[in-house]
Amino acid sequence: MDTRTGLPVVGMVGGGQLARMTHQAAISLGQSLRVLAESPDDSAALIAADVRIGSHTDLAALREFAKGCDAVTFDHEHVPGEHIRALEDEGVKVFPAASALVFAQDKGEMRERLSGLGAPVPRWRRVTSASDISDFAAEAGWPVVAKATRGGYDGRGVWMLADSAAAADLLATGTPLIVEERVPLRRELAVLVARSPFGQVAAYPVVETVQQDGICVEVIAPAPDLPENRALDAQQLAIDLANELGVVGLLAVELFETATGILVNELAMRPHNSGHWTIEGARTSQFEQHLRAVLDYPMGSTTLTAPAVVMANVLGGPAGGISIDERVHHLFAEDPAARVHLYGKTVRPGRKIGHVTVLGDDLATVRARAARAARWLQEGE
Amino acid sequence: MDTRTGLPVVGMVGGGQLARMTHQAAISLGQSLRVLAESPDDSAALIAADVRIGSHTDLAALREFAKGCDAVTFDHEHVPGEHIRALEDEGVKVFPAASALVFAQDKGEMRERLSGLGAPVPRWRRVTSASDISDFAAEAGWPVVAKATRGGYDGRGVWMLADSAAAADLLATGTPLIVEERVPLRRELAVLVARSPFGQVAAYPVVETVQQDGICVEVIAPAPDLPENRALDAQQLAIDLANELGVVGLLAVELFETATGILVNELAMRPHNSGHWTIEGARTSQFEQHLRAVLDYPMGSTTLTAPAVVMANVLGGPAGGISIDERVHHLFAEDPAARVHLYGKTVRPGRKIGHVTVLGDDLATVRARAARAARWLQEGE
Repeated sequence: MDTRTGLPVVGMVGGGQLARMTHQAAISLGQSLRVLAESPDDSAALIAADVRIGSHTDLAALREFAKGCDAVTFDHEHVPGEHIRALEDEGVKVFPAASALVFAQDKGEMRERLSGLGAPVPRWRRVTSASDISDFAAEAGWPVVAKATRGGYDGRGVWMLADSAAAADLLATGTPLIVEERVPLRRELAVLVARSPFGQVAAYPVVETVQQDGICVEVIAPAPDLPENRALDAQQLAIDLANELGVVGLLAVELFETATGILVNELAMRPHNSGHWTIEGARTSQFEQHLRAVLDYPMGSTTLTAPAVVMANVLGGPAGGISIDERVHHLFAEDPAARVHLYGKTVRPGRKIGHVTVLGDDLATVRARAARAARWLQEGE
Repeated sequence: MDTRTGLPVVGMVGGGQLARMTHQAAISLGQSLRVLAESPDDSAALIAADVRIGSHTDLAALREFAKGCDAVTFDHEHVPGEHIRALEDEGVKVFPAASALVFAQDKGEMRERLSGLGAPVPRWRRVTSASDISDFAAEAGWPVVAKATRGGYDGRGVWMLADSAAAADLLATGTPLIVEERVPLRRELAVLVARSPFGQVAAYPVVETVQQDGICVEVIAPAPDLPENRALDAQQLAIDLANELGVVGLLAVELFETATGILVNELAMRPHNSGHWTIEGARTSQFEQHLRAVLDYPMGSTTLTAPAVVMANVLGGPAGGISIDERVHHLFAEDPAARVHLYGKTVRPGRKIGHVTVLGDDLATVRARAARAARWLQEGE
């Protein structure tokens, strides 16, 4: 508890844009997010008042950080499970708990648990040898999708293997792997739910996510032309998983939509890129919802605030051109209603440096405006 | 310019809730608001990364604060005009400029200038003696409204004088005064505009403000049953005043609506309580708009996001009862779509400690929900 305000203190491990936007939400709740950042130049460290510098792999730093926090939560999945369990053993309220977070940290554990629960997943197998992969491909067909069990994100740690020679090359790196069938997907969807320790769960509308080179570039809320029963199935699936896995906080379920149904692709247990649209597009943003969940407050309304909401990521563009400040200037002149979110990050090609959200009645118009706004910020033209 | 981000630095003098919410808006623009606070426990100082402690009446502190700021602006009206002019002379971009801000600092100056411009104002007079007041009352009738020319807010610095004895008592305090006729008002309205150095002006919809004991308790957007021509007149009046007075940043014009038209009550040149509803209720919040204006960015859209928006202030209630954290908990359970903004302030009876905003289609429902939400936070029941 913050004795100055009588309100709780949430600590977030990691100082990226998720912590940055969570601090923004915390301010409305009368709080000040405590951030454990690697560097004072981290996205959240640039703007938050209560910043501690330290590594998420240093148990002593985590212990010190957790002192006085009413709840500790995460901006990323990289805190070692044994450190989280150590904090839990010492009485720190860590959400999600290590026992839940492992399913977002380790794709093998996730696939095994989901298969055990009977959740819809692609065919998959843990593999340690070339023959494991060939055997799997004999059933599922080449190419197969190989995934590092740990540490991948934004397309990293995922490989499309065309044949057994490619499989052998990848195995030679020693990375622990699973393989999955290549799903004939129609598109990707995502559904975001929040769950509190009390057990209350709130689901956001199902969205469509559009990827390029493994990086999410666009999120459309609600997912267009999604039959209502499929949307309800997806929400129910996410709610069931949150309950079964004992998630506290947000759970983002990334889905493949195929001709016949949905399959779980990935899980994340934190604010998620597929939920950035909620800042303006839902009555309660995912960032506030995550705080409410980890503090065991009642969940906020997840109602849409407009018929069509589109979020487009702003990736770092090629070097040169006009400054980021001039780009903002031009975009604001071009589209006075586009909502801009910049993360204070130095521009590197392909790096997520911000996002834009556009709301309206006509999806085609909203998509075009969001894409144009992101392009303006990205390329300055 | 912040060399870490390539984005501008705005400095705000004063660490109250207006600076707090402006920092929230700055984060989206990739910025971090620099705050000059009196104390580390000030509302904005609790949550902003770049906080300097110092007094707004100390020119040396202001000079130091302004170094490296792309623009300096204000959370309140209390910075002495000569200090602002000193900064201006040294090349600091201060918005609003001293030459404009004086009309928000001094009610005598404001009334004189507005009368000169032919703007609609109540009958008024500068007074220094009991006979000045009696002469004015002979024309305008008792009671008359006396106002301290400087320093009043939230009902402070305003007196209703019933007769010449009351006038003599007030004059004996030595406070410089103007008197005004007591306007037979139907209700109070407010209109908020923003103006950039480039001269672009954007007006928000006219709102109704409801006061109790001189303190704003409720703001209704848009003002119900306001004839369109009167709304347009009010917006045009505010735009004209922003242009004539050379305001850069926000200008809030508080209005009396009478049976026959509108009269200007007060001016403020900063984010204003009558504009808190814009955080969720307009496409661009007043806080972002103020930043855009002082940075000479193009203005954002002022479109409403719902047919009915009501903001209710949360005032400190009587001591005792359940904690503020428990009150939040109960409110969230009661109304999952109410938007809560707490300022991190210690509770004192009558002090503005936060506000709530409710959006919807039916005004009566929205008003009732907002009032109930504020009462919950205020009284804990």
